[in-house]
Amino acid sequence: MALSRTSRENDPNGAAERETFLSGLLSHLMDQGRRLVSRRPAAGPAWSLAATGQPLPDLCRALLDRTGETAQVLLATEILARWGAADKRQKLDLLRALARDFGPSPERLERAIEAYQSEATPLAMHELHASAEPARQEVLRRLNLAPMGTVSLVRMREELLRHLKDEPDLRVLDADFVHLFASWFNRGFLVLRRVDWTTPASVLEKIIRYEAVHEIRGWSDLRRRLDPFDRRCFAFFHPQLADDPIIFVEVALTSEIPVAIRDLINDAPRDEAGDQINTAVFYSISNCHRGLQGISFGASLIRQVVEALKRELPSLETFVTLSPVPGFAAWLARSTATSALSAEATQALAHLDEADWFDRPEIASRLRPVLMELAARYLVVEKSPDGLPADPVARFHLGNGARLERLNFLADLSPKGVRQAHGLMVNYLYDLRELDRNYERFATAGAVAASRAVSSMVAPASRRRSGRAKAN
Amino acid sequence: MALSRTSRENDPNGAAERETFLSGLLSHLMDQGRRLVSRRPAAGPAWSLAATGQPLPDLCRALLDRTGETAQVLLATEILARWGAADKRQKLDLLRALARDFGPSPERLERAIEAYQSEATPLAMHELHASAEPARQEVLRRLNLAPMGTVSLVRMREELLRHLKDEPDLRVLDADFVHLFASWFNRGFLVLRRVDWTTPASVLEKIIRYEAVHEIRGWSDLRRRLDPFDRRCFAFFHPQLADDPIIFVEVALTSEIPVAIRDLINDAPRDEAGDQINTAVFYSISNCHRGLQGISFGASLIRQVVEALKRELPSLETFVTLSPVPGFAAWLARSTATSALSAEATQALAHLDEADWFDRPEIASRLRPVLMELAARYLVVEKSPDGLPADPVARFHLGNGARLERLNFLADLSPKGVRQAHGLMVNYLYDLRELDRNYERFATAGAVAASRAVSSMVAPASRRRSGRAKAN
Amino acid sequence: MALSRTSRENDPNGAAERETFLSGLLSHLMDQGRRLVSRRPAAGPAWSLAATGQPLPDLCRALLDRTGETAQVLLATEILARWGAADKRQKLDLLRALARDFGPSPERLERAIEAYQSEATPLAMHELHASAEPARQEVLRRLNLAPMGTVSLVRMREELLRHLKDEPDLRVLDADFVHLFASWFNRGFLVLRRVDWTTPASVLEKIIRYEAVHEIRGWSDLRRRLDPFDRRCFAFFHPQLADDPIIFVEVALTSEIPVAIRDLINDAPRDEAGDQINTAVFYSISNCHRGLQGISFGASLIRQVVEALKRELPSLETFVTLSPVPGFAAWLARSTATSALSAEATQALAHLDEADWFDRPEIASRLRPVLMELAARYLVVEKSPDGLPADPVARFHLGNGARLERLNFLADLSPKGVRQAHGLMVNYLYDLRELDRNYERFATAGAVAASRAVSSMVAPASRRRSGRAKAN
Amino acid sequence: MALSRTSRENDPNGAAERETFLSGLLSHLMDQGRRLVSRRPAAGPAWSLAATGQPLPDLCRALLDRTGETAQVLLATEILARWGAADKRQKLDLLRALARDFGPSPERLERAIEAYQSEATPLAMHELHASAEPARQEVLRRLNLAPMGTVSLVRMREELLRHLKDEPDLRVLDADFVHLFASWFNRGFLVLRRVDWTTPASVLEKIIRYEAVHEIRGWSDLRRRLDPFDRRCFAFFHPQLADDPIIFVEVALTSEIPVAIRDLINDAPRDEAGDQINTAVFYSISNCHRGLQGISFGASLIRQVVEALKRELPSLETFVTLSPVPGFAAWLARSTATSALSAEATQALAHLDEADWFDRPEIASRLRPVLMELAARYLVVEKSPDGLPADPVARFHLGNGARLERLNFLADLSPKGVRQAHGLMVNYLYDLRELDRNYERFATAGAVAASRAVSSMVAPASRRRSGRAKAN
Repeated sequence: MALSRTSRENDPNGAAERETFLSGLLSHLMDQGRRLVSRRPAAGPAWSLAATGQPLPDLCRALLDRTGETAQVLLATEILARWGAADKRQKLDLLRALARDFGPSPERLERAIEAYQSEATPLAMHELHASAEPARQEVLRRLNLAPMGTVSLVRMREELLRHLKDEPDLRVLDADFVHLFASWFNRGFLVLRRVDWTTPASVLEKIIRYEAVHEIRGWSDLRRRLDPFDRRCFAFFHPQLADDPIIFVEVALTSEIPVAIRDLINDAPRDEAGDQINTAVFYSISNCHRGLQGISFGASLIRQVVEALKRELPSLETFVTLSPVPGFAAWLARSTATSALSAEATQALAHLDEADWFDRPEIASRLRPVLMELAARYLVVEKSPDGLPADPVARFHLGNGARLERLNFLADLSPKGVRQAHGLMVNYLYDLRELDRNYERFATAGAVAASRAVSSMVAPASRRRSGRAKAN
Repeated sequence: MALSRTSRENDPNGAAERETFLSGLLSHLMDQGRRLVSRRPAAGPAWSLAATGQPLPDLCRALLDRTGETAQVLLATEILARWGAADKRQKLDLLRALARDFGPSPERLERAIEAYQSEATPLAMHELHASAEPARQEVLRRLNLAPMGTVSLVRMREELLRHLKDEPDLRVLDADFVHLFASWFNRGFLVLRRVDWTTPASVLEKIIRYEAVHEIRGWSDLRRRLDPFDRRCFAFFHPQLADDPIIFVEVALTSEIPVAIRDLINDAPRDEAGDQINTAVFYSISNCHRGLQGISFGASLIRQVVEALKRELPSLETFVTLSPVPGFAAWLARSTATSALSAEATQALAHLDEADWFDRPEIASRLRPVLMELAARYLVVEKSPDGLPADPVARFHLGNGARLERLNFLADLSPKGVRQAHGLMVNYLYDLRELDRNYERFATAGAVAASRAVSSMVAPASRRRSGRAKAN
Repeated sequence: MALSRTSRENDPNGAAERETFLSGLLSHLMDQGRRLVSRRPAAGPAWSLAATGQPLPDLCRALLDRTGETAQVLLATEILARWGAADKRQKLDLLRALARDFGPSPERLERAIEAYQSEATPLAMHELHASAEPARQEVLRRLNLAPMGTVSLVRMREELLRHLKDEPDLRVLDADFVHLFASWFNRGFLVLRRVDWTTPASVLEKIIRYEAVHEIRGWSDLRRRLDPFDRRCFAFFHPQLADDPIIFVEVALTSEIPVAIRDLINDAPRDEAGDQINTAVFYSISNCHRGLQGISFGASLIRQVVEALKRELPSLETFVTLSPVPGFAAWLARSTATSALSAEATQALAHLDEADWFDRPEIASRLRPVLMELAARYLVVEKSPDGLPADPVARFHLGNGARLERLNFLADLSPKGVRQAHGLMVNYLYDLRELDRNYERFATAGAVAASRAVSSMVAPASRRRSGRAKAN
Repeated sequence: MALSRTSRENDPNGAAERETFLSGLLSHLMDQGRRLVSRRPAAGPAWSLAATGQPLPDLCRALLDRTGETAQVLLATEILARWGAADKRQKLDLLRALARDFGPSPERLERAIEAYQSEATPLAMHELHASAEPARQEVLRRLNLAPMGTVSLVRMREELLRHLKDEPDLRVLDADFVHLFASWFNRGFLVLRRVDWTTPASVLEKIIRYEAVHEIRGWSDLRRRLDPFDRRCFAFFHPQLADDPIIFVEVALTSEIPVAIRDLINDAPRDEAGDQINTAVFYSISNCHRGLQGISFGASLIRQVVEALKRELPSLETFVTLSPVPGFAAWLARSTATSALSAEATQALAHLDEADWFDRPEIASRLRPVLMELAARYLVVEKSPDGLPADPVARFHLGNGARLERLNFLADLSPKGVRQAHGLMVNYLYDLRELDRNYERFATAGAVAASRAVSSMVAPASRRRSGRAKAN
């Protein structure tokens, strides 16, 4: 064996040693913030801030004028405290003011445009860029200096998102949030941690609360998902959000690609010495903060979890999801695809209106081919106006380079599963060797990577459709 | 006592508890990067990168085109490795190319200007800002994704700074570095750690290397500065720079404001039970990375150290520096201030050319009032073209809100001390109650905060000068 | 301030620094054990142990013969695994065998006695001591080398204690357990940790399970005891028992000495900014392992918790318990003390048989003086045959040097509280300034430290009793 | 792959997670002790101890009388402080007093003997054992409760060992030390940590100081031993000795079994990408505390290091020492073995008196076979009076189950190496598959495990010797 210096990295002892100095850094980082807050009341006159009854936008203006570092931190803290206590109306007023009144300085911008137009030097372009930066970006940066500033700003954007549809003028503010969050939540600052039964309760209760796919019903249910030898959960954390996870994924280790969710989240005891484990199933991925919408973490998360699992269990061969198809039923309801179906198929579909169709084997077996083919078409062919897959979950996994591997009939018979997707679930396969290739083809040509089995279901449908097209 | 929730923050036990979950985060963060590097060779064909003989600028262009996350990380890693191995010429070529060829897209920018000029909506301003962003910022952001990317970019700017004077066209690139570094080295990500004899040797050797004010001569000397009961050293660390400190300060705990550096860094044993300690002396502050020049950490460092020391030793009353006056001798040599001196004073100054003047008490005592007054004038009155104090150390401390407290004659008789400042040193006082006020007056009116003793030395000089002015 | 070297110990930063190297030690310690276990199956032929069908006592004999370290560890592991799987009968057989057949060697002992009797040299005494050591102590020491050995031995003694009453011959084995446990669970190895909502769930579920005084009903109830700003919980942990606490205490922070348990464990929201906090109330102390009975941790725990709280909240003035009086009702039922009561008192006592006497104010007010006086007598005067206070809780707190401060009527109206003590609870006061004095007087003269209020209740009763005594 | 629960142990992420709660325990443990000390002066009258001018033995007597826990800790602290300040004479007085005056109680012992002789019940034996325990054991146990008590007792035994030869009466005290240390320094409490360049300087300076085999000349030399990619150093630490290592081993990773020490500790740069690494060489093992003499750690250390290295570098195949033969030259000087040598051999040996014989190839080549054969005989055949190998290093490694693999001529030409062993060094091979078998044969039959190469050198010598024996 040729020993390179880096092989040391695989040494658990060595690693532990080396971590010792660093391991305290992060906590200090967080404690610094906390202490600032907690010490404030005791800091005395020199640090105090005159109680201000001014409206929030005026305070933000003042924040831009403050030059002293401490002064900025204190005013930012005050503003965020006031924001926290403000009512809906006051909050909206601030958001509007930021979007409207905290743009760039028109004079400086005019001058910069003029200079650029007289000669397009790099320096002129630089000044143009600088002078076009809206003042609200600096406001947000300074608010971020307050203790717990980042969390507060994530919540602030959450509020903003509620109004975005009704008030398109707020979009510029949202763009600034996204710009800054992308930098602050840089992948380099995200930390992957396993979440298990030894994780602090304060983190675990957030897992219960944030689980968005398959509801966790209390601590016992949580334990069933974390503690068994064949379960894993991983989350991304961020220094500024402390013990509040950003996104997490639940994983089951199995001996084959699962066909139904009940196999993964039921209570049945499992035989440890039993089946051969070779498959990791990602069966639930939950984003924790609406305010971080559009800042993508999922791809990194899955990649890093795949790598962590590979390290732990080298014999894992297959990494696959068991995913919902949240848009299928709605699409089917409004789609014209059904108009081309055979009478028999149409008849079968009519049974979907009956509450217990899935409990009646004969009906289910008639529905099966029809639903499967329609779902394949929905997932592979159907696109949003932006050219991406219509189904949001498909968009996410295909955008990560995964492959649509298999459709599973009667896979999720919970009310939600039946309502959203007539019980269908999907496996997306993460094959490390083809992720990048798939991704490139998806990103450049919109190509959906699908297994032969899925593709073959689509082909006839498309053919038929093109047949129809010809017929027209 | 009314117990607020935050009082829990002062609970060392509680704090320790809470740290447990977080304490591993940072090391994970760093290890993620390291692992990426170390695993690369083993990652196999899917992750490999075709060996590229292309010039670095072309690779940077390719980096902008890559869409897959892994692809970006690998290419960034490759570029930085190639940069590390490049010669002076190749490096300069890349820097020039970045400054010249990676600006904004002219077409998009033109369109944005046009749109803005037709109607100055917030959205138009936003697009103007976005379209004026030079492409090199995105290049730097993507390079930062590589393992050890941040360190490499700090070194890259170090290289850039060497050429800045000769090639002003590179300044736009430098501005981009500063913009990005300001965000990445955000105060919120800096961690204050005490450095002492229990600190890892790998950190300590860097302290020895980086000490910029009073050279550390090996491990025994280092120990004398770190280990005694009345010595402290604090440094800022950053997650992405691991165990490489960013800036550090050495502190001596004393019973009075020291008048000479030899009292602090000599070898004499000290009686622990002896004097009453009430003063913390910051006698050496060293920035560790030239590549971070202009990103200011010193003010935060001193504030946080003052707070940490206050917490540890509540009876500390005075926080003061013992600082060099690096520009004094050079200023004196070229200043016209001396022309107005009395004959006696001029005669005394002539002795400065003699090597051992400070060893001759009679001469020293004649020089003392002359030098002190001139130094007071240099520090309080003399300004750079930018209106800030001429002396760089004065500029730093006064800019932090400190007060020029005392001048010390024959305070540093090392060759460097005599050469730079004729042996003078200065105490700047950090009085928490007046830091912000001083800072505001300094920032807005350029006012130098000085003790009465120092001010009174300046007054006559100024008066004399204004006298002269009148006489003209 | 004269700065001694030790003042550094109060420096939270400094402390954190110093901890970094040590902080990994313990986990390594535990992991070593775990790894040994987990690796065993894979360790291959050289480490394997021939499956042995021999009875456990024979295996213990073999364990004494083994000389190789690894051989000992493997056999010890095997024995403990077999013990874990054994039935009641087999377990008892082993305990009996250890007590009966694993004594000292009679021959060696005879020789040692002879030598000692011929000349009582120190060496002869040493040999006498050594030769009288029962072989079972070495058996237990070697079993302790197995991974999780200590836990297994704690469980083994738990089993032993079940038989002790019926089989007095087992007492010598119990004495050996106590001797060894006292050394292994040396106070120096116990670690005080705060338990709160950031503690791992795996620890918290044990707190729920082990709570012995006031039952915790699930995770929400637990959170109410741990998370509010005025609640604390501290536990002792031991390296060899990992995340299994040994003993823990629950604390409420209040503004006065509480008179009833419902004030501490009810659900009512509490106003953080409200009352002045100056009192710490220890309202529940639970030993976690029956197998450690007789190895006392409570005194150390309370002392250390008092110190930790003092550090966190310097304004805490009063440290007090709110304790049950578990033996009161039983004592009252069989006591002759009641025979000397007035008719009125006797009549009042008769109401205790009615289920809801405490809900009837008129009756309660008649019972109050009678019960209080009897309880004072029970606690202050009544002794076990061993001369210690009859009440086990009183014995514990008085033995720690605490003072019996106050009796509280209608303080615990839970079924258990009414059944055991007719609803009475007691405050024991921990006054650091008098703990040692109280302890010495308690240990040497059996003196019960009691407040004037309590003492004055006892006096008349005693007088009356001595009155009766005279009359006889 | 059948996944057992224990496979989780191999998960670095999982492991890190689980450590988080535990990782603070140990530091708390140590800090508890430190705090006790540091707080003492401030603890006020209730905790204070009347300054005592009494002799140390009287204080030890008083320590046995104290019943209060705090009282004991304070008095123990006082005694150890007084011991630390005592002169040689006073120390010896205390040691003598402990050995002579702190035995068992004769009365109680007599009664116990009587009872035992009347009927040898288990209880009687137990009482005999208990009553024969010398009071000094309890003294030592209580001294151990003082902060830093364990360290102080290790130093106390160091002192004791200096007098043991001259005062055999002290031996009983030494036996008590050994008995207690064996329990306190139980393998279960030892923690293996890698020592490298990221280890705290406070630990590293101890490594420099304690290195007993091949002197470390300052920090640069230390770095050469710790930092290169093919070097390792591991140490055992103990909670009560904090950052003071107990024993450590230095390891070089090589591609073959080394023949000379200069190959391992010279300065030459090494090519990382170069040779294939398959061998771990233990080239220096140092015990750090004389006071722990006789408490064996080395066997555990080597075993655990072998396991740690195997985990880090699975391709390591050979674990071997490069060891000195410290007793060889002295044995040779006094041995009669040489009398049977051929004239030629005797002549060759005479050259050993010349300072530079090893620099003269012709002489060296003549000496080689003679010295090698004699050394083989010394190591394989020669025994101490106790039947163990005469050479202390051989005794250690053979006692661990290692095999004498190879003798190396001209392997250590340092003055010490030449003086002690005429430049010879030895490889002991640790083959995990035969360690236990070798150990058993060594322990039971005194058999020395040796490679065929070494055995074959001994055979003729023995034969010759037995030849001689017959001739007599």
